[in-house]
Amino acid sequence: MTGWVEKLDAVAHSRGSLVCVGLDPDPERMAVSGVAEFNRAIIDATSDLVCAYKPQLAFYEALGIGGLRALEQTVSHIRDVAPDAVLVGDCKRGDIGSTAAAYARAMFDVWDFDTVTLHPYLGIESVEPFTERADRGAIIVCRTSNPGAAELQDLRLTGGDGEGTLYEHTARLASEWNTRGNVGIVVGATYPGEMAKLRDQHPDMPFLIPGVGAQGGDVEAATRAGVNAKGRGVMISSSRGIIYASEEAATFDAAARQATLTLRDQINEALK
Amino acid sequence: MTGWVEKLDAVAHSRGSLVCVGLDPDPERMAVSGVAEFNRAIIDATSDLVCAYKPQLAFYEALGIGGLRALEQTVSHIRDVAPDAVLVGDCKRGDIGSTAAAYARAMFDVWDFDTVTLHPYLGIESVEPFTERADRGAIIVCRTSNPGAAELQDLRLTGGDGEGTLYEHTARLASEWNTRGNVGIVVGATYPGEMAKLRDQHPDMPFLIPGVGAQGGDVEAATRAGVNAKGRGVMISSSRGIIYASEEAATFDAAARQATLTLRDQINEALK
Repeated sequence: MTGWVEKLDAVAHSRGSLVCVGLDPDPERMAVSGVAEFNRAIIDATSDLVCAYKPQLAFYEALGIGGLRALEQTVSHIRDVAPDAVLVGDCKRGDIGSTAAAYARAMFDVWDFDTVTLHPYLGIESVEPFTERADRGAIIVCRTSNPGAAELQDLRLTGGDGEGTLYEHTARLASEWNTRGNVGIVVGATYPGEMAKLRDQHPDMPFLIPGVGAQGGDVEAATRAGVNAKGRGVMISSSRGIIYASEEAATFDAAARQATLTLRDQINEALK
Repeated sequence: MTGWVEKLDAVAHSRGSLVCVGLDPDPERMAVSGVAEFNRAIIDATSDLVCAYKPQLAFYEALGIGGLRALEQTVSHIRDVAPDAVLVGDCKRGDIGSTAAAYARAMFDVWDFDTVTLHPYLGIESVEPFTERADRGAIIVCRTSNPGAAELQDLRLTGGDGEGTLYEHTARLASEWNTRGNVGIVVGATYPGEMAKLRDQHPDMPFLIPGVGAQGGDVEAATRAGVNAKGRGVMISSSRGIIYASEEAATFDAAARQATLTLRDQINEALK
């Protein structure tokens, strides 16, 4: 049974792409009115250029049950046209015991994601129901790209295991929790110095890197800081920069393809 | 416009109850087969005895779109038969910017919760889209009742604002974020000493207290440690101990009522 980490390595190699397209459908910006139709067009325009797709659950939940039906159709379409792409459920869940087990059933058995983003705050019990599935896994939120991230993540720890900052400790915990080789971390593109340090401390864990494009992270710096020794092991994620590259019905899919190509080439250029 | 904190104070006073019933439907344990029917029976059996209901989103999501339809019916039934009860969406979300805004639309406009549980890890930007709604609000996960909670929450901080433990810092941040009087914190019942200290530091913030019943917290100790100066300001939450008090179709609703009465009286006894 191949896990998502091996799948990512294989597709990044075969497609020559580290781009993850974030599917965050917002009816106020979509060039066509149906979420499933919009996503289908974006997927069809980009499926040969990416290593992963990342639907953000919030945007589907905000549209109620109709939005969740569109999520179902979106996942199914990705499985049809891009079966080798990693399917990341960006849900940032974090709960314990029977609740965490229920979320794992939702994200894997109902929605069929390969891996999902999780909060670390409740400890290993909130992660294990996801990582005990050898063919699935989890990506722990470690260092995010927003200004307010520092309020908790940059806190300095003292004593025992807790040297350095909270986000470094979170990365260490994620690494300890990674006994089955199916755990990654989220590291925002806006902090390439911190990312390079984390890569140094964790040579093998995959990084999900949001924050390029609309959030202003430097693609070249993030790429060089984030990749592993093979020049892979990252998913560099852009959502709005790709899916809203044009908001015109006649051009949005072609514009999404062009934006994906540009990002892919920028990343690959940085690795030369 | 009355916020959920005022609503909680009013219902706790009028009903003489600090009990919150957690609605965590698990088809393997439910005494009847439909989630909406099960919840309806539990609600009808307990609506005069509680200050709040707390559906845990994971259990509905785990059942796919059918589960979410049952959530819709459950919320609507609570609004009908217990309009004065606080409706807590236990979702533990935590994301930023346009994503946090989308989650707030989902939890308030789609599902109609009064307040929701949130993770603190991404800072104020992940909370503000919820708290900027004067009639709604948020409850920040601070100190949970599981053994693994200590991995992050008990970390000791050093320097500047960050004295004490991470969970104390989280409580301070929640208090800072509480500029509109609609923020509470989650504090597990299994740590009454820590709860008393948090109440001392934060005399006015409401506490959502899980961890009695199935999780083993001492009701009397938690009640005395958690209440505010008026003897209210807490929601003491029990899920499995109430909704699965009996797993027989003939008796589960009466057993749920009896378990709720017992918990209510235990709490009120502790306050004498």
